[in-house]
Amino acid sequence: MSSAAAAGKGLLLKADSIADTFRDEIQRSLGTRQKAPKLVGILSTSHSPSRYYAEFTRKQCEALGVNFVLKETGAALNKDRPESAKLAEGEGVEEAIIEANDDDSVDGVMVYFPIFGAQQDQYLQQVVSPLKDVEGLHFKFHYNLYHNIRFVQPKDLMSSVTPTDIPSQPTDDVPPEGTMKSILPCTPLAIVKCLEHVGVYNKILPYGDRAYGKTVTVINRSEVVGRPLAALLANDGARVFSVDIDSIQEYTKRPKSTESSTRYHPRHIVHPCSLSLQDCLALSDVVVSAVPNTEYKVKTGWLKDGCVAVNVAAEKNFEKDVREKASMYLPAVGKVTIMMLLRNLYVSALTRCACSPIHSPAVALCSLRLQQYREFL
Amino acid sequence: MSSAAAAGKGLLLKADSIADTFRDEIQRSLGTRQKAPKLVGILSTSHSPSRYYAEFTRKQCEALGVNFVLKETGAALNKDRPESAKLAEGEGVEEAIIEANDDDSVDGVMVYFPIFGAQQDQYLQQVVSPLKDVEGLHFKFHYNLYHNIRFVQPKDLMSSVTPTDIPSQPTDDVPPEGTMKSILPCTPLAIVKCLEHVGVYNKILPYGDRAYGKTVTVINRSEVVGRPLAALLANDGARVFSVDIDSIQEYTKRPKSTESSTRYHPRHIVHPCSLSLQDCLALSDVVVSAVPNTEYKVKTGWLKDGCVAVNVAAEKNFEKDVREKASMYLPAVGKVTIMMLLRNLYVSALTRCACSPIHSPAVALCSLRLQQYREFL
Repeated sequence: MSSAAAAGKGLLLKADSIADTFRDEIQRSLGTRQKAPKLVGILSTSHSPSRYYAEFTRKQCEALGVNFVLKETGAALNKDRPESAKLAEGEGVEEAIIEANDDDSVDGVMVYFPIFGAQQDQYLQQVVSPLKDVEGLHFKFHYNLYHNIRFVQPKDLMSSVTPTDIPSQPTDDVPPEGTMKSILPCTPLAIVKCLEHVGVYNKILPYGDRAYGKTVTVINRSEVVGRPLAALLANDGARVFSVDIDSIQEYTKRPKSTESSTRYHPRHIVHPCSLSLQDCLALSDVVVSAVPNTEYKVKTGWLKDGCVAVNVAAEKNFEKDVREKASMYLPAVGKVTIMMLLRNLYVSALTRCACSPIHSPAVALCSLRLQQYREFL
Repeated sequence: MSSAAAAGKGLLLKADSIADTFRDEIQRSLGTRQKAPKLVGILSTSHSPSRYYAEFTRKQCEALGVNFVLKETGAALNKDRPESAKLAEGEGVEEAIIEANDDDSVDGVMVYFPIFGAQQDQYLQQVVSPLKDVEGLHFKFHYNLYHNIRFVQPKDLMSSVTPTDIPSQPTDDVPPEGTMKSILPCTPLAIVKCLEHVGVYNKILPYGDRAYGKTVTVINRSEVVGRPLAALLANDGARVFSVDIDSIQEYTKRPKSTESSTRYHPRHIVHPCSLSLQDCLALSDVVVSAVPNTEYKVKTGWLKDGCVAVNVAAEKNFEKDVREKASMYLPAVGKVTIMMLLRNLYVSALTRCACSPIHSPAVALCSLRLQQYREFL
């Protein structure tokens, strides 16, 4: 019995051990490739958490034999410049993305956000080629996520028009011939992987519905973390309360009891919700909080006894005594996020082979590599 | 001499007369088509300015013989529903967009924003097919605008990958064979058209540089109005101060005096700016304000004598006495905006003919129709 359990406290779970299982898997996959994949990280601000994250990316890449190139631009270069020659925050970032898009030796591109603020950053996320978007922030991937489209043909990634022929629901996680998994945004995916690890997902349930029976509160509804996470969990069968400053919504793919059909929807439906945050927390088996505000804290007293608490914010959103109520507490998921990114890098490297020549609408599937890919995921 | 001029006051310019010149042009163009183009407007909230704008769109369409269909969904339908059956704000909007995308009889789609907030609304703007996006809010069009790419091949609109072979700078506004003008976002375009109308653009200067010599302050840097407008004006040769809550930037395509080349950049460059708003206004021939805050007012005392003042906000951003300093004051541009939208509708209808079949990468240019198009713009 651990000392925590002996004290009647919930488990403190570090992301390291979860990250390690993916590190091994990625290492094995990379070992089968002749050439190390190349990841370009673009740092364009003087924001020190971004610099720290860039150095962390480098370390993780080097340990796995991934070729990481840090491209610094704008205010990231200011350290040794005289006051009169200082560069602006974000200067040159768009040009650096375009250069990496156009460089055939580059397999993946990641950009260290925040830079200009939510709207302009969202614009920049669309500039990254979907064939190299290892963070999964391009609209194409968000659209697939929200619509529960799990497998795509590589050529669909290159179209700006949303797909009309949506494939039928998969019954397992093996992509059908000629398709690949749609890349998922790294942070929401990392949280799902952590919840799988701690047993919130139940493998006895059928694929695509393994969070059935679980109630989850997700605090934050940004397009980068909160909304995609709530949708992912609801598409996987959970009942999700999506909480933001001005409203609470319920995401679920199960029909309301008043509806005639008992079959669930192919993807989550959003309903208005009249519960308070306190009501939601009292019902929730899992609470994920990602509020970028140092002042914000989830009240331990409101948590359901034995819940799983996951913090995604830089400054902890849970009170110090969270483990008095939570059975498990994950204070950070960053180490798992970077593994998801490196996994996506491997997928991007394979996909780009399958989409050759890159800018041609005629896509020749490279079947050997797609086979490797299908074995990987 | 008008009474305003007699009183030594600036002119009050209503958008009606500017809108009328475009109405005539659109009417002539539509007269050459066998079938009226069909515009679907999607109203999904209980927000009364959106309802008002939808009714205004209908009136303008009917006057021009455009087939306008208002699709109401979510809270827009709540008026006659009992409290227990109220629908949520924005409910069903994404599904309505997808339905209109997929409906071959629809030439253009417009969505009445705001709905969910800036980030999720920006997501929705990417769901609208670029072949039907008469508002010009899709990333493809913003990218072209920021990069000063004025003409595109219709097939480029269908690619999610940004173009690598950027055509050379045009010397006039006639699209080269096989290309069309890239659609511009309606509100920034309407403001440019108003500035052309009042003589801020000088037709004696070469195409693409007709705002040279003018200094403009644009207050607001959203992705919907302020940033695209600042970029458009700077790409057209103006020196632009882009003002937002937390910073002021200077947009210009002319090199700084310290740079060796005297040739100007093919598109605007963004520089940090240490001037205050008061400094910027003292230098500005034109001031455009689009701050969505009833409290916000530009101080008349700070304006340069004889400047042109343009208000784009619902609640006026200029003080009552603005015409004591401004030589011309445009209190609203909405009527011109809707004309730009209807112009884009005509272009969309022609482009869709040129991109047939819609979802095929093989694009057969319909030369007769493209010819019509080239004559139109």
